[in-house]
Amino acid sequence: MATYTPFLMVIATSHATVASILADSLGEVERIFERQLASEFDEVNALCRHVERYRGKMLRPTLAILSGLAAGRDPLDRATITADHLTVAATVEMIHMATLVHDDVLDEAQVRRKGATLNALRGNEAAVMLGDYLISNAFHLCSRIGRPELNLELGAVTNTLCEGELVQLHHRDDLALDETTYFEIVQRKTAVLVGAACRLGARLSNAPEAAVAALGRYGTAAGIAFQVQDDLLDLEGSEEVVGKSVGRDLEKGKMTLPTILHLAAAPAADRSAALAAIAARDDAALRKLVVGSGAADEARRRAAAFVAEARGELAHLPASPVRDLLDELAQRVIRREF
Amino acid sequence: MATYTPFLMVIATSHATVASILADSLGEVERIFERQLASEFDEVNALCRHVERYRGKMLRPTLAILSGLAAGRDPLDRATITADHLTVAATVEMIHMATLVHDDVLDEAQVRRKGATLNALRGNEAAVMLGDYLISNAFHLCSRIGRPELNLELGAVTNTLCEGELVQLHHRDDLALDETTYFEIVQRKTAVLVGAACRLGARLSNAPEAAVAALGRYGTAAGIAFQVQDDLLDLEGSEEVVGKSVGRDLEKGKMTLPTILHLAAAPAADRSAALAAIAARDDAALRKLVVGSGAADEARRRAAAFVAEARGELAHLPASPVRDLLDELAQRVIRREF
Repeated sequence: MATYTPFLMVIATSHATVASILADSLGEVERIFERQLASEFDEVNALCRHVERYRGKMLRPTLAILSGLAAGRDPLDRATITADHLTVAATVEMIHMATLVHDDVLDEAQVRRKGATLNALRGNEAAVMLGDYLISNAFHLCSRIGRPELNLELGAVTNTLCEGELVQLHHRDDLALDETTYFEIVQRKTAVLVGAACRLGARLSNAPEAAVAALGRYGTAAGIAFQVQDDLLDLEGSEEVVGKSVGRDLEKGKMTLPTILHLAAAPAADRSAALAAIAARDDAALRKLVVGSGAADEARRRAAAFVAEARGELAHLPASPVRDLLDELAQRVIRREF
Repeated sequence: MATYTPFLMVIATSHATVASILADSLGEVERIFERQLASEFDEVNALCRHVERYRGKMLRPTLAILSGLAAGRDPLDRATITADHLTVAATVEMIHMATLVHDDVLDEAQVRRKGATLNALRGNEAAVMLGDYLISNAFHLCSRIGRPELNLELGAVTNTLCEGELVQLHHRDDLALDETTYFEIVQRKTAVLVGAACRLGARLSNAPEAAVAALGRYGTAAGIAFQVQDDLLDLEGSEEVVGKSVGRDLEKGKMTLPTILHLAAAPAADRSAALAAIAARDDAALRKLVVGSGAADEARRRAAAFVAEARGELAHLPASPVRDLLDELAQRVIRREF
């Protein structure tokens, strides 16, 4: 029995065929994921079980599978999804999980997906090593497909992802961080992997290169929108609704898009007040200023523009119910309250 | 100009031809290493430059190249070493560097290779992300060869390596850790990668499978001996000579072979005294007991037995000056004071 992700629940009745293919595929992705991580050591398996609680939306596997369908010969035929699609979907999810585990070391976040984070429970050391175990297994899993160009592409993606994390770290507490650098970081840290999920899904369906590239751009743009929305949730959301620590960005000196936009456009007095709120780590004061000045709404408009860009790329694909779902999914990225 | 590693200095005059091939090869390995890590971001390059100071013996690339020569058609012909040998040698070194960077997060070690460790300088967060960048680049580098079976094999090696780290972490402060579990950990955490360096070096020379496997076992046994020697250095060495923090094993609750052997064989009173010294993190007292009871010497004998095992495997290779050097290198593993 496959897990019903939020998106699956949305489409279960409106698109029963796709929902069924997707649910079965995600169920198989989970099994591949678990089989890959199974160790002869109980203590390793215990840590891996803990990580399963991190799994939530399965956004990246969902995108890999929907892209595989949308770019395939028959988007409504479950045979369009091959074993390789599922392996790649599990691989990108494993890479994503590794980044979550290591991000939690970085963020010292105490709450993720409404459970205590691994590092809070077991110490940073287990979190570092478990993240490494996930990365290593992701590459091993991908290697099973036996197509070296996939390894090369995913290796380049994770290189870029790590660069994004390092650049972000470098700019911690950098109040002068500008919008350009912000988007460079987001592109690398978040969007590249989402783009790769879409691109590889399409490639494994032997889609024409134009469709493969368009889906890559679709995923990249949707990924950026996703991260901006994450910033907004950290600023405006409540921990209860979001299911993970909020207000952490400020606490850890991460400049978010709403704050960057506020500092760039606000009158001098508002700007000074915001800098003082940042220095004092005063989340409530900063929120009030950034929302009040319209910077949060401006960030929302940027996110919406990326969603529009993502949706525009879908024109390179043949019309199908699956293409419609990718369109729907992109819109939901900025509507999500989860 | 290639770096002269300690082993290269030893063989420079006695084996000039091999020393020249090895020096050139290691120089090229360094260039591949640096080219692979080069980033468009200065801040990433600055971190990578810091890691270069970790590089010391280059044991694993040395073994990959010597294995490639010893198992090749002509061990004294530099054409025996191909571009793929050098890429694999750089890959295993990069994996090793990643484990050092992440081990330092785990160990909170303040000194490594006579320079401040990265985590002490830049915080654990940069160390975690830089380690990830090294792992990712190692897989990407290996993927460039375009032989998926190499990726699969290295992925399995790093899976095992991470398991070893996780099992070791699980047994932290476990005073009942027995010799069997100790060697299970060492085999995974250290020996498997050394064995892989030798095995892959030989495989890329298209050696017969018996020679490939024998070199794999040679490296594994030598790697175990190396780790036992590391335990002895941590127990008996001085920071000045060893060039990294000593007495850290005790401080971090890592049971070393000398201590395990002492606890297993000592009379009740000595055993109690050792347990008390461990509980009090009293390095000097533990050292006195473990050396006094002969347990340190017993650990030395175990290491010597693994060296003998490693040397025995070389009988599966044709006689050559390079085979002699592998024999010499195995002996030096337990003679090193560096």
